[in-house]
Amino acid sequence: MTSLKLRKVCIDTYHENVAYLHRNCPLYRSEGFQALSKIEITDGASRAPVIAVLNIVDDDAIIAPDELGLSEQTFAQFKTDEGSAVFVNHASPPSSLNAVRQKIAGNRLDADDFLQICEDIVNNRYSKIEIAAFLVGCAESGMERDEMLYLTQAMVKTGETLDWGEPLVVDKHCIGGIPGNRTTMVIVPIVAAHGMLMPKTSSRAITSPAGTADTMEVLAQVNLPPDKMRNVVQQHRGFIAWGGTANLAPVDDVLISVERPLAMDSKGQLVASILSKKLAAGSTHLLIDIPVGPSAKVHTQTEALRLRKLFEYVGDRAGLEIEVMISDGQQPIGNGVGPALEARDVLLVLQNDPQAPIDLREKALQMAGRILEFDPDVRGGQGYYLARDLLESGRAWEKMQAIINAQGANDEPLPPASLQHRVVAPHDGVVTAIDNLQIAHIARLAGAPMDKAAGVDLHKKLHDHVEQGEPLLTIYAEFPADFQFAKKAANENSGYSLEAPE
Amino acid sequence: MTSLKLRKVCIDTYHENVAYLHRNCPLYRSEGFQALSKIEITDGASRAPVIAVLNIVDDDAIIAPDELGLSEQTFAQFKTDEGSAVFVNHASPPSSLNAVRQKIAGNRLDADDFLQICEDIVNNRYSKIEIAAFLVGCAESGMERDEMLYLTQAMVKTGETLDWGEPLVVDKHCIGGIPGNRTTMVIVPIVAAHGMLMPKTSSRAITSPAGTADTMEVLAQVNLPPDKMRNVVQQHRGFIAWGGTANLAPVDDVLISVERPLAMDSKGQLVASILSKKLAAGSTHLLIDIPVGPSAKVHTQTEALRLRKLFEYVGDRAGLEIEVMISDGQQPIGNGVGPALEARDVLLVLQNDPQAPIDLREKALQMAGRILEFDPDVRGGQGYYLARDLLESGRAWEKMQAIINAQGANDEPLPPASLQHRVVAPHDGVVTAIDNLQIAHIARLAGAPMDKAAGVDLHKKLHDHVEQGEPLLTIYAEFPADFQFAKKAANENSGYSLEAPE
Repeated sequence: MTSLKLRKVCIDTYHENVAYLHRNCPLYRSEGFQALSKIEITDGASRAPVIAVLNIVDDDAIIAPDELGLSEQTFAQFKTDEGSAVFVNHASPPSSLNAVRQKIAGNRLDADDFLQICEDIVNNRYSKIEIAAFLVGCAESGMERDEMLYLTQAMVKTGETLDWGEPLVVDKHCIGGIPGNRTTMVIVPIVAAHGMLMPKTSSRAITSPAGTADTMEVLAQVNLPPDKMRNVVQQHRGFIAWGGTANLAPVDDVLISVERPLAMDSKGQLVASILSKKLAAGSTHLLIDIPVGPSAKVHTQTEALRLRKLFEYVGDRAGLEIEVMISDGQQPIGNGVGPALEARDVLLVLQNDPQAPIDLREKALQMAGRILEFDPDVRGGQGYYLARDLLESGRAWEKMQAIINAQGANDEPLPPASLQHRVVAPHDGVVTAIDNLQIAHIARLAGAPMDKAAGVDLHKKLHDHVEQGEPLLTIYAEFPADFQFAKKAANENSGYSLEAPE
Repeated sequence: MTSLKLRKVCIDTYHENVAYLHRNCPLYRSEGFQALSKIEITDGASRAPVIAVLNIVDDDAIIAPDELGLSEQTFAQFKTDEGSAVFVNHASPPSSLNAVRQKIAGNRLDADDFLQICEDIVNNRYSKIEIAAFLVGCAESGMERDEMLYLTQAMVKTGETLDWGEPLVVDKHCIGGIPGNRTTMVIVPIVAAHGMLMPKTSSRAITSPAGTADTMEVLAQVNLPPDKMRNVVQQHRGFIAWGGTANLAPVDDVLISVERPLAMDSKGQLVASILSKKLAAGSTHLLIDIPVGPSAKVHTQTEALRLRKLFEYVGDRAGLEIEVMISDGQQPIGNGVGPALEARDVLLVLQNDPQAPIDLREKALQMAGRILEFDPDVRGGQGYYLARDLLESGRAWEKMQAIINAQGANDEPLPPASLQHRVVAPHDGVVTAIDNLQIAHIARLAGAPMDKAAGVDLHKKLHDHVEQGEPLLTIYAEFPADFQFAKKAANENSGYSLEAPE
């Protein structure tokens, strides 16, 4: 077999392995390779081959005819020096693809099938096409509850897991889609002030105007190395960090990167995604919040109940104690939408400021109460009062300051961005609906979450009376172009429905 | 909006549009782009944007921070000079993706849905992920017969069509999977000698050891420009050319490039793929051959009948006169497998050589007979005898020589490749099965179709008696590495099943 010289091509191809071969490479024609063929690359030694999709290059500056190029991620996996001799072959499809075809044909898969699929995915043996086939196959014929369990367990097994060395490690998760809703940053200090262990790894926003990690970053460092996490949690019983540094349930990230552009709605995927991350993060007790509303992810009470049963079924069998609460998802929670504006709301609540948004405070207290009741010493029904006491006494705010300082505090509070525009009520009326999706859309156009000080402030909530000319919301933006886009969108549709008074 | 300078990046990304942005490009962070994001590229004028998947580059030699790179195919679509100002935006998902989600949810799509999907695909607005979702959605919940019709018509409409200006334009198609089976090259000269119009565009092998275009290329040029095709067909009533030069049903090529790696078995896709190509190629009458056998694509008579009904249903409604024959697909047809070896068999049949493989001759005569009966002047049941007469009289061979010369004859017959290995019978017996897939596999390992003279020659067919040590097949290869691979595979499994005599 002819060898080629390995070369790193400095192109970031994210979760897809890509290899580059020159069109004049003798192997190209003789082996019948073609652009988008899947190939197998080895160094001639016994280690497992790396699989990549082929791109054909016509430019010697990128690679020479006797070279094989690998994109950055692919090169990193190959763990061999540039210039080394490598060998290339047609890749056979991963053997677990048979199980995917079984799933597409409507059959059930067993635990071993899911494990093999996840192992092949985490080892980059699946192309995006094959991953999409798996996802659509699971979405369409649906997954049995046991299949969700198997997928969850397989996703945990094929990544790293954290172990905090304690029997009670609590966590919470809100099914997304509600702007504002920054309860985590109120709950963690309350729960940690009680002495419960709550090492909270959070995500950044992907399609929303702010994730908890983005919002916490307004106040403190969130990109904590594992050692730092352990230090902070030993001292303070909690932290709020970005979860992307650890390799927890990495298959989930790959599946999401393919699933998102398809905007598919797969319950099984949702359950496995959430529970695998929590299990891998070492949680033992988990509170799940399912907001229900016309513009929330879950539209009806029935749907929410069905989802609750799925979480309970899989959680029980995977060894995770689960409590599910179904909440009001008819409108955003809090006033601010965007990292800095949401951080402001969180601080107002923790500081017991009379200006604090009541809905954010109430929801956070209820959730914290449910979590506190995971403590065997807390009497059923007393969690809420305990949480309120921890908040009103200032102990939660003290705890939050300690956590912020331990993670690395930012110097200054961040004022809202300077370009500001008020959207006013076109006539007198009562607020009958606020569209979560449209509010999130306006906030993102304004620059959130990339521009931390950008976003939207809501001045009216559901059932509020408004007079013509009164402000409904304020847009904050840093850059003129974003400002124009957001204003235009808000002028076309502010997200508010007003009904004229009788 | 900030503009970037357009640059062509000489990378061949086949059917997927790829754009390259430098990591230090100011737009990269400010817009929240990410590797694998889908972006929309415009030149600021009113023409439709080009959609591409983003790769992030860390090497100034590939592109500079103020440039936007496009892969070769993407650049060609954009039709703007290098250095021009271009603008980049997040791409919204193609609107037809809603229909794909409907299909995934198990609903039926209408003609307009399929047309919009095909238009978006042909305009490169679908990523591979989205195409895979469409294919799996169609495969799993299945397509109704009307949906197959709609897809067929949409694929024809979104490409070029040929018009031969005659009321009777015949064609044939064999459902693949049977090695050898080179009937087209016998049928075309017979039918053309009768005076029927048979402009035959053929494919090259993709997963098989030889396509008709590969085999014809042993004897003549097959890469004919459209003018040349018209000249040859006007003079000789037929040709056998490669169909890849015209843009016939281009969506089919895109779908196949995504479907193949998944090795999915979708009847609707198969029917739409074959009939759209024939309709686009201007055929009015079509004979379809469905070989049935344990290692053929279609395994049972029932399955073949079901497929026949689908072809008839869609063909009738799309205005294509269809005849379906169900044939014996238990073993390869002819002796040679590989372009040169199959061309040799074809010439032996056309020259009425006593060494000619009888099965190839008989099957070609039967098919040619059915096609000749599309002629209103040929009495039902007389086609076979007419075909045999055209063959035995030498008129078919004369016609073939005229066609070869008109297309551009190759100088020399191509002898089989020089490395040769005989696989012999391990014991006395009767041949009870020949595995089409294994024979094709051995021939491909030997180098077919890239090395035209490589392949396999079969010395025994079904029900033949063999003695221990008698040759079953001969492997021909050009290169030692291929030769070793093919020998190893054949020694492990020759594809022959022998039953010892009682």
